Amino acid sequence: MSLILNLDEIQRVLPRIDVLKIIEEGFVAYSDGRVVVPPVGELVFDDPPGEAHIKYGYIKNDDFYVIKIASGFYHNPRIGLPSSQGMMLVFSQKTGVCEAVLLDRGLLTDIRTAAAGAVAARLLAPREVQRIGILGAGTQAKLQLQHLGGVTPCRRSLVWVPDPDETEPFLQCFAGSGFDIEIAQSPSEVARACNLIVTATPSTRPLLQASEISRGTHITAVGSDTADKIELDPAILSLADVVVVDSLPQSESRGEIFRAVQSGDFERDSAVELGVALADPTLSRRDDDQITVCDLTGVAVQDIQIAKAVFNEVRRESSGRPS
Amino acid sequence: MSLILNLDEIQRVLPRIDVLKIIEEGFVAYSDGRVVVPPVGELVFDDPPGEAHIKYGYIKNDDFYVIKIASGFYHNPRIGLPSSQGMMLVFSQKTGVCEAVLLDRGLLTDIRTAAAGAVAARLLAPREVQRIGILGAGTQAKLQLQHLGGVTPCRRSLVWVPDPDETEPFLQCFAGSGFDIEIAQSPSEVARACNLIVTATPSTRPLLQASEISRGTHITAVGSDTADKIELDPAILSLADVVVVDSLPQSESRGEIFRAVQSGDFERDSAVELGVALADPTLSRRDDDQITVCDLTGVAVQDIQIAKAVFNEVRRESSGRPS
Repeated sequence: MSLILNLDEIQRVLPRIDVLKIIEEGFVAYSDGRVVVPPVGELVFDDPPGEAHIKYGYIKNDDFYVIKIASGFYHNPRIGLPSSQGMMLVFSQKTGVCEAVLLDRGLLTDIRTAAAGAVAARLLAPREVQRIGILGAGTQAKLQLQHLGGVTPCRRSLVWVPDPDETEPFLQCFAGSGFDIEIAQSPSEVARACNLIVTATPSTRPLLQASEISRGTHITAVGSDTADKIELDPAILSLADVVVVDSLPQSESRGEIFRAVQSGDFERDSAVELGVALADPTLSRRDDDQITVCDLTGVAVQDIQIAKAVFNEVRRESSGRPS
Repeated sequence: MSLILNLDEIQRVLPRIDVLKIIEEGFVAYSDGRVVVPPVGELVFDDPPGEAHIKYGYIKNDDFYVIKIASGFYHNPRIGLPSSQGMMLVFSQKTGVCEAVLLDRGLLTDIRTAAAGAVAARLLAPREVQRIGILGAGTQAKLQLQHLGGVTPCRRSLVWVPDPDETEPFLQCFAGSGFDIEIAQSPSEVARACNLIVTATPSTRPLLQASEISRGTHITAVGSDTADKIELDPAILSLADVVVVDSLPQSESRGEIFRAVQSGDFERDSAVELGVALADPTLSRRDDDQITVCDLTGVAVQDIQIAKAVFNEVRRESSGRPS
């Protein structure tokens, strides 16, 4: 019988998982060619507008394979439902038996995406982070800042909020968290004041300009995961000393690198895959004066790693062994 | 909260579903261009050997979309597990919410495949079936014969059993069923004695020869669903007056028609899609002297229809309304 896990059960075990560690291991396996990830399956709906994606794959010689279904139905909030829906399925790679159904409603995708941002910052941020800049104030922007708390002692943050209605909820989210949050009037203000910046918006025009970025800054671009979204002036990629990307193949069709290659500002060969840079630190930031960029479009190996970890943690717990 | 249905709950509601009716409606919608079915997703495993397929899609302007995961791990019986594993997932087409997880372990795929055979026989078999011929004695062969019981009064059956060990289980399965089962020594014996024949084997060489088929016979070929499997001498397709196929696009890469086109015995344009023939009876058998063939490779709309029906039946039941 498959284990069925609801959102509250998943939330309960998450704090016991070293998410950054498993996401790092996943990227290394991916760049090492040890992960099988077929093209994403897609369904599109017109009325109401919506889309569903099926991401799936496995790490070779591992115990499980994972299928993730994630959908976005953007009129859902009108009827009091979250836009994002979804689940992850864990199957045995040896027998095909479905071991677990994780009814996470998109939470694990949010977490694995935020964890990738923290992994990128741990690898690429300058030694001394003076101020953390965040563009965006949605779920992913909040999670990015929370996860950065685990990789830098810096607690000063400057946040540009695209929609003023999101300001108060964002501030409330971090009340008592130890973070000192200030609200910026523009993306430029963030660019000029911060040396670790995460962009987490659905923008379709560049928000950060190359002329505003100081030496020694690291930027992680999380928002652009399609061909039409963009957050960084493509000139930032040509300016950067190190450009890292989660998936080189995906950068051929989406994300900041895709756009910068299109506009002639960047050559894809100059980018290093995150899993390669994690395995070989000489390929990442070499001094505190360099500008570094990490472009994240989201890779199925992150889903594989987090789904497996949640299932293993619940199983370990129920078998009474210490975690 | 998604409804989770186990195998026994699914088995309990199945008898209340008019499976032939919904499968027929599905084929008609499919041939009418009202079904969205992207290419099948696939994962292949080496050690132990196994494969998983993801079939998914929806009928336009319907309530749900469906994802089916089906796997075959052929060493499973060595550890006491069935080779086939799988589940079907029912999602709202309006919100993306997962309405139901059907942990059917492949049962619904078996049933929808058998139902397609019965639909084909109801449309194409001669008015008077003298004897039902079955090639194969596995799960699908049994289900085909059982489902034919609903579309013809004939209860005389002649069965060719590829593996002698399957003879006794097959006979036991039909003990007390009203079927009079005889065992044939060869496929030829079945071909010569029966005017309604279903082939349900994983054969990779033709089992039925054109020279053995009598006028007035209908043959449904169920076993070949890949490029290398074949059950019918390709000359049977050129001999047939009417050739029907569940999916013309799929017949470009798999099944009997694929093989007969490859060998130059048949032109794909001569085949009619099952959904078209169901909607327009002038395109099917015109008299009891004709030879007809139906080639089934399995279409995702069958999965969509049966998963929806099981979910709707459970929901109707739990809401207390009469079914």
